Amino acid sequence: MTLHQRHNYPGKLVVVEGVDGSGKSTQLNLLRNWLEDRGQKVIFTQWNSSKLISKTIKDAKRNNSLIPVTFSLLHATDFADRLENIIKPALKAGLTVLADRYCYTAFARDAARGVDKDWLRNLYGFAIKPDAAFYFQVPIEVSLERIASSREPGFYESGMDIGLSNDPRQSFQIFQSRVISEYDGMVQEYGLNLMAATAPIHEQQVLFRQKVGHLFLQR
Amino acid sequence: MTLHQRHNYPGKLVVVEGVDGSGKSTQLNLLRNWLEDRGQKVIFTQWNSSKLISKTIKDAKRNNSLIPVTFSLLHATDFADRLENIIKPALKAGLTVLADRYCYTAFARDAARGVDKDWLRNLYGFAIKPDAAFYFQVPIEVSLERIASSREPGFYESGMDIGLSNDPRQSFQIFQSRVISEYDGMVQEYGLNLMAATAPIHEQQVLFRQKVGHLFLQR
Repeated sequence: MTLHQRHNYPGKLVVVEGVDGSGKSTQLNLLRNWLEDRGQKVIFTQWNSSKLISKTIKDAKRNNSLIPVTFSLLHATDFADRLENIIKPALKAGLTVLADRYCYTAFARDAARGVDKDWLRNLYGFAIKPDAAFYFQVPIEVSLERIASSREPGFYESGMDIGLSNDPRQSFQIFQSRVISEYDGMVQEYGLNLMAATAPIHEQQVLFRQKVGHLFLQR
Repeated sequence: MTLHQRHNYPGKLVVVEGVDGSGKSTQLNLLRNWLEDRGQKVIFTQWNSSKLISKTIKDAKRNNSLIPVTFSLLHATDFADRLENIIKPALKAGLTVLADRYCYTAFARDAARGVDKDWLRNLYGFAIKPDAAFYFQVPIEVSLERIASSREPGFYESGMDIGLSNDPRQSFQIFQSRVISEYDGMVQEYGLNLMAATAPIHEQQVLFRQKVGHLFLQR
């Protein structure tokens, strides 16, 4: 199984991707409610949330002691653990798995930190192809505005760890622009569904439901 | 920098490899004393010993909850962290680094657990080539005898996690034979120095010192 080959499990794997402030989590939560209302059994899994490793990642971030490759490996470990213990068992049991971020997040963020793209793609060579992956695309200004309205951009979120600029706002702009550019390239490479994340929330959700709904009609 | 290209640091990296019971750690400790007696500044680093991740690995082993790929990623994370925070700084400072196991251990053990060889080699693509790597080769019977004389072979050491046999001794034999076969193949692939680890300890040490001594005459 790879990212380029359909899995054979009875369940469905739906993935959302995009920079912080793209609204992807909001959309996924609305979708979740809709699916549950329609009687679908849904499992939700988030980037960086495995019991095995998420504390280690948090500690390491606090100490700012790691280089990008080590972070990549930590995130891949988290992903492998969730894939094996959450995602695959749910798919085997015929459930719908909603993933808030998938390995495309690593491909975008880690590459933006200068990690080799081919190395990253091999690293996640054990991943399974989602039934549908949605990329919520926003211009960098919108992302920054949405985040800044509620909080300061984080140290890692702004790529401050790789020394792009001492100004958090400027660093965010440079770093997240790189992330967006990596995502944009993956639309073609992995057949991501492009979502215009500047459209009204309701409009996006209607489209999102249509596209996900199709997955259940295919059988 | 890769495993096939000399590094340019002023220090030296010397690595020992081999199955448990091959005597490699004994040989490395004797070498360390000898080097220190001759005024060399020596740093010692062991597989699976980074502060960042070694506790996670121990916990996971206790729970027997992980698949081979996740273990590979945990070990690679440990390695990346030690490479960056111990090995490279020491080499830059002109020290001699003695490593008890290096990424060849992952290539041997993880492949013996069925993990894809090419994936593993890419995974450790960030490693640096040792100045000299020694493989202490013993027949499987000798390894098992040496270990069994002091303790029971461990669960993972015996490959019990992949269900080769319910009998620990038999499982050890099957699993470690695979590990040895992987190591044997790396002699050519990575130019490992083959050491006959059934020879008397003193004889091996004389040869080991000769070969390592050469590294310091090359400049």
